[in-house]
Amino acid sequence: MKNLAKTAARNLAAVREKKPLIHNITNYVVMNYTANALLAMGASPVMAHAPNEVEEMVSFAGALVLNIGTLTDDWIASMIKAGKKASKLKTPIILDPVGAGATTLRTSAAKSIIQETRVDVIRGNASEVLSLRHEDSKTKGVDAIHSVEAATQTAIILANELESVLAITGPTDLITDGQQVIRVSNGHPLMGYVTGTGCTATVTIGAFLAIDKDPVSATATALAFFGLAGEVAAKNASAPGSFMIAMLDALYNITPERLQAGCRFEAQ
Amino acid sequence: MKNLAKTAARNLAAVREKKPLIHNITNYVVMNYTANALLAMGASPVMAHAPNEVEEMVSFAGALVLNIGTLTDDWIASMIKAGKKASKLKTPIILDPVGAGATTLRTSAAKSIIQETRVDVIRGNASEVLSLRHEDSKTKGVDAIHSVEAATQTAIILANELESVLAITGPTDLITDGQQVIRVSNGHPLMGYVTGTGCTATVTIGAFLAIDKDPVSATATALAFFGLAGEVAAKNASAPGSFMIAMLDALYNITPERLQAGCRFEAQ
Amino acid sequence: MKNLAKTAARNLAAVREKKPLIHNITNYVVMNYTANALLAMGASPVMAHAPNEVEEMVSFAGALVLNIGTLTDDWIASMIKAGKKASKLKTPIILDPVGAGATTLRTSAAKSIIQETRVDVIRGNASEVLSLRHEDSKTKGVDAIHSVEAATQTAIILANELESVLAITGPTDLITDGQQVIRVSNGHPLMGYVTGTGCTATVTIGAFLAIDKDPVSATATALAFFGLAGEVAAKNASAPGSFMIAMLDALYNITPERLQAGCRFEAQ
Repeated sequence: MKNLAKTAARNLAAVREKKPLIHNITNYVVMNYTANALLAMGASPVMAHAPNEVEEMVSFAGALVLNIGTLTDDWIASMIKAGKKASKLKTPIILDPVGAGATTLRTSAAKSIIQETRVDVIRGNASEVLSLRHEDSKTKGVDAIHSVEAATQTAIILANELESVLAITGPTDLITDGQQVIRVSNGHPLMGYVTGTGCTATVTIGAFLAIDKDPVSATATALAFFGLAGEVAAKNASAPGSFMIAMLDALYNITPERLQAGCRFEAQ
Repeated sequence: MKNLAKTAARNLAAVREKKPLIHNITNYVVMNYTANALLAMGASPVMAHAPNEVEEMVSFAGALVLNIGTLTDDWIASMIKAGKKASKLKTPIILDPVGAGATTLRTSAAKSIIQETRVDVIRGNASEVLSLRHEDSKTKGVDAIHSVEAATQTAIILANELESVLAITGPTDLITDGQQVIRVSNGHPLMGYVTGTGCTATVTIGAFLAIDKDPVSATATALAFFGLAGEVAAKNASAPGSFMIAMLDALYNITPERLQAGCRFEAQ
Repeated sequence: MKNLAKTAARNLAAVREKKPLIHNITNYVVMNYTANALLAMGASPVMAHAPNEVEEMVSFAGALVLNIGTLTDDWIASMIKAGKKASKLKTPIILDPVGAGATTLRTSAAKSIIQETRVDVIRGNASEVLSLRHEDSKTKGVDAIHSVEAATQTAIILANELESVLAITGPTDLITDGQQVIRVSNGHPLMGYVTGTGCTATVTIGAFLAIDKDPVSATATALAFFGLAGEVAAKNASAPGSFMIAMLDALYNITPERLQAGCRFEAQ
């Protein structure tokens, strides 16, 4: 995976050089932190959700991030409106289905977004992503998966059914477009003690999608970068408060060279 | 109060072991910080306010936190809907009446929530809590209270009238269910320079209510833990920015043993 | 500008002594950070946007901050309602036209607020502020400005046309009421890597407006204080995460004497 590590370095340098505008329609909890993360890594965040503004705003953007935490019906409508415009403009879209599978509203909202817009990448944990399968899916639920092989096969089938790159994150992240499978094992356990680290992984993918046309390599390299930021932060902080601040510092400080050396990819 | 200090240690250990899900319908200002505080202490936060989701979400939760900062009418309706469901399920509810007494909307919203749901604990400062009394209350307003004894008597009457445990926080916190009175004198003045420390005390009580069935001991031990986190943070930070981060670190780092040794309770 | 540096020191001392209540109707991204900044510098923040509450809330306030990030139509209506009440009460109003010029919604919302309320100060970057000019303005767009002199002349004309003090911030801030022109060159490049530094400059001006009746000196001294906080923070932090925390610490730690010595004003 030498080439992918090189791509990671190139992508990070490109984000810093091009400073892509990332349009976020996201949840209240993480708005501040994800905006700061995007700024720290070198991108330009904008948050805008008004129905009479989202189409205009997304037309300036390099990528659109849709995140369904703290959701209500009017926000879903704005997400779909922005997503349709982005689809038309071929602006990459990444969906974070926060809490899909937990409540009916979230599952159905995520499914509507997938159906009505062209989502390039979906990032979530295993149960969130699996909850998105169609009723006639050939996959089974999360309880039926008892091995890494079964999880991989399920992800491949689901990526094909949803026609989207899937990024299933956890201690090891799995990225697949239904053909290629890449694993990323960067990261640190303290990331689980900061709210919105998943959402921040998502916006990092958004920034990389804006400058790398291949959604698989954009996603894998973004997750390696984000995971490495967790590893670097953990060297300077041992508790969640100082860790979350050290994460922002790391997103700013990691050089392309350090990223290239620190990526932990595994292809299948 | 040796027993209560032991209970504090046991409660903190139980939060970390059981990781209770705390459902928050709360204000925009503190959503991120209170979510991070809950994660740091070992609980699992979820923020959800959609009217077509709150009943489903609260049915998974160990406690429901209702906080009326940055309030609008639709949020009040969602709070009452979630609160009614929680009441039916006997899931503990804690109310933070932010700004009650200051504006008509906030006072009447807090009163409606108390009337329409079964609130287990109300946490606020003296003027917020006193503003909640019924029109025919036997208590007088905050201006009529000129001594600790008068304040205590008022709190006891009010707790009986509102049929709820009251936690009136300040340099010394007063907790009463209308019979027992406990005082907690943990804390640090820098807590007043961080937005949402009161709201964060409230979610800490929420986490402890989820694992301790006695609302008086849950509330008193949670406030001792939260105040001790302020004391510990002040050893590492002397200004509000670094202090608020050190608070999150302390919520993660304080062990049950340290809490047991550091509680400052006083019973009447 | 010796006198202005003295005024800066006096204003900061007055904020800390009087702790003015600053009513914010602002965007979701910066609510927490701006509330913490106001607390750190010694003021009292309140965030409230409900249409049935804003008039009551603003009547207690020393200043009203209107910020149009993450805007929707109902928030615009609340801003105008609060602004009209503040205008009647002669409570100072400061407008932050976040994103004006970028989307139609934001430009028209900012113009409506200016037309329907008495805005004392408008703070934004050059393109935001220039987007606010009337159709028959004697000024030209941002692309027609090729020198500091041209920018200054444009700002003077625009301040007269909008009948408001303008604070156009950047590496050097320009403040004008259409007659006086003051420049402030405090600040640090890392401020551009933290979300909402512009918004936080705005609330700092809000706090100073609450205690200094001259909007020109209130604005200039607030921007010097805020910029100096960036300089002080940069001595303790070299990356955005720790920098944004160090900024809050600096807003708390800077003494009036240090501010007086550190102001970098330039009059025309």
